[in-house]
Amino acid sequence: MKTRAAVAFEAKKPLEIVEVDLEGPRAGEVLVEIKATGICHTDAYTLEGFDSEGIFPSILGHEGAGVVVEVGPGVTSVAVGDHVIPLYTPECRQCKSCLSRKTNLCTAIRATQGKGLMPDGTSRFSYKGQPIYHYMGCSTFSNYTVLPEIAVAKIRKDAPFDTACYVGCGVTTGVGAVVNTAHVEPGANCIVFGLGGIGLNVIQGLKLVGANMIVGVDINPDREEWGRRFGMTHFVNPKAIDGDIVQHLVALTDGGADYTFDATGNTTVMRQALEACHRGWGESVIIGVAEAGKEIATRPFQLVTGRVWRGTAFGGARGRTDTPKIVDWYMDGKIEIDPMITHRLPLERINEAFDLMHKGESIRSVVIY
Amino acid sequence: MKTRAAVAFEAKKPLEIVEVDLEGPRAGEVLVEIKATGICHTDAYTLEGFDSEGIFPSILGHEGAGVVVEVGPGVTSVAVGDHVIPLYTPECRQCKSCLSRKTNLCTAIRATQGKGLMPDGTSRFSYKGQPIYHYMGCSTFSNYTVLPEIAVAKIRKDAPFDTACYVGCGVTTGVGAVVNTAHVEPGANCIVFGLGGIGLNVIQGLKLVGANMIVGVDINPDREEWGRRFGMTHFVNPKAIDGDIVQHLVALTDGGADYTFDATGNTTVMRQALEACHRGWGESVIIGVAEAGKEIATRPFQLVTGRVWRGTAFGGARGRTDTPKIVDWYMDGKIEIDPMITHRLPLERINEAFDLMHKGESIRSVVIY
Repeated sequence: MKTRAAVAFEAKKPLEIVEVDLEGPRAGEVLVEIKATGICHTDAYTLEGFDSEGIFPSILGHEGAGVVVEVGPGVTSVAVGDHVIPLYTPECRQCKSCLSRKTNLCTAIRATQGKGLMPDGTSRFSYKGQPIYHYMGCSTFSNYTVLPEIAVAKIRKDAPFDTACYVGCGVTTGVGAVVNTAHVEPGANCIVFGLGGIGLNVIQGLKLVGANMIVGVDINPDREEWGRRFGMTHFVNPKAIDGDIVQHLVALTDGGADYTFDATGNTTVMRQALEACHRGWGESVIIGVAEAGKEIATRPFQLVTGRVWRGTAFGGARGRTDTPKIVDWYMDGKIEIDPMITHRLPLERINEAFDLMHKGESIRSVVIY
Repeated sequence: MKTRAAVAFEAKKPLEIVEVDLEGPRAGEVLVEIKATGICHTDAYTLEGFDSEGIFPSILGHEGAGVVVEVGPGVTSVAVGDHVIPLYTPECRQCKSCLSRKTNLCTAIRATQGKGLMPDGTSRFSYKGQPIYHYMGCSTFSNYTVLPEIAVAKIRKDAPFDTACYVGCGVTTGVGAVVNTAHVEPGANCIVFGLGGIGLNVIQGLKLVGANMIVGVDINPDREEWGRRFGMTHFVNPKAIDGDIVQHLVALTDGGADYTFDATGNTTVMRQALEACHRGWGESVIIGVAEAGKEIATRPFQLVTGRVWRGTAFGGARGRTDTPKIVDWYMDGKIEIDPMITHRLPLERINEAFDLMHKGESIRSVVIY
């Protein structure tokens, strides 16, 4: 079949909207009509050539929602007509990682996914006879895409596509970091570094679980209003205080935070986030993806005296099990998504969404097919 | 009263055995006759002047066992005749840390302890009219010492002093890192870096909780026999393998260890210990105290993909609650101490114990009063 898609033919160039060829689903695969997709920093990171493992030409996009329109042989967990969210972190429920009960990082199709291919080692996309690679196992910047059955989460049919798609990455990453990774308990004092889309979702996750202080830290003063909108109780602009940001935050939280979250991707901030934790038990969670080659550092004394350094990917959420629950929380009003979707555009204007993101003018832009 | 003690008059000099003056216990304090004390690397670290907060003249030693011979006003939790282990990590059960239920790092007397003083801001020791400072709140290199009531753990009377004293630091630090900090579960694959006294106690802690692989790593081949003696299942000498130690260990443990422990104090090894953890869930525990100014570093990707970096002090043990249990485990044969006490000396020969330690010829030397 043919499908309209935004193709990244090479790094550092705008996406091109073209008709590409798409093969139907093979065994264990499903064909999904994407109805909406968010544009995430990770897509930009790859497009700009920062990801040394980025593959071109490819169809980017990993934060979508849509409808199953065809299933390949052997598919049993979803059917035509089901509403689904594509999963860049699949959940096979069979591999060592899934069976460990300790991580969401399913390894069933990791090798091929990293090469831009389906699990059988081939691509379903092509253009003028040349293969186009998949991206993060999703390629949601295509109106139709093929996914492994283990890489789609079935969600309720009354959830709007143009907001549910955000659960495919940003919402789950932020809320999940609180719920699945840090296991924040009611009454905890917490600090969130970076009030972009991820940081705001951490904030609403903290509100959801009954945190006490929810301190937001950002060098952009405009983000204070956004933070408060979702439950932030205190705002700190590192550029507007005297002295050291860590000491300031430790004093503000009476000895340090119970939990801190880095949603900046900046390794200097990651260190501040660790050191702003309370002696004895404070835990810091790295969410942001750092620049290639950058390292985090601290004195081991910080850990020996009880601080814990951890990280999270996709908010520690098991794709097929937890993602539908987050959609339910949204539909039940436990968390909000609507005000975060600041821009809606047709696929033809997708490059504008990248510009908005770079200028800091959007929380999340969504392409509606 | 007078008591015989090994005094550290200044850094980098041998201890001198002299008669010092000791004031009796004030309110909330107890006078303890020390019957035996271990000599630990931390004592040597201070004596050699590496600890920038080291105070002289002082009476070192923090790994003792003895008998309460006098109690000050208001003391209720111990009585004359009780056998006790002095605690450099006290347990007041009243401070924010004790009440957090998340850490053993009681802060009740931290400020004065760090200054070499009793909680009322004075020293009980003097020599020729000049004050001698306390050390780590214990000063077990004195035949008699005064301690706050909250800094002694009452233990059973049938435990021999010359082995029970090792529970005051090394045994609890190693076994506790497994039991209290890492919470290692049966069947886990584990790696221990550094097979000194702490490392061997980590190993026997791992054996106690039913770990599967217990891999010991040390550049000293003589330590293989010691490790196997306490439950080590595999030995790796980094100098005897081809290629990268981390890759070697990841391959040996089929993807990385569930838990790793650094008992070397070397920040390069600490990084190896983290990176030898299994993707998704491996946790690394820093036990060793690093040189002043040294930092640990890694790529944040290591944490984002599920590894956890933490540390432990005094094995996460609450002094008065958990230390007596470890003595019970020893007396019940669940853990061993006797073979680790390689040398017993009178106080007059305490400087020999430091020499043995530096030469790597002892696991633990104990002074018997």
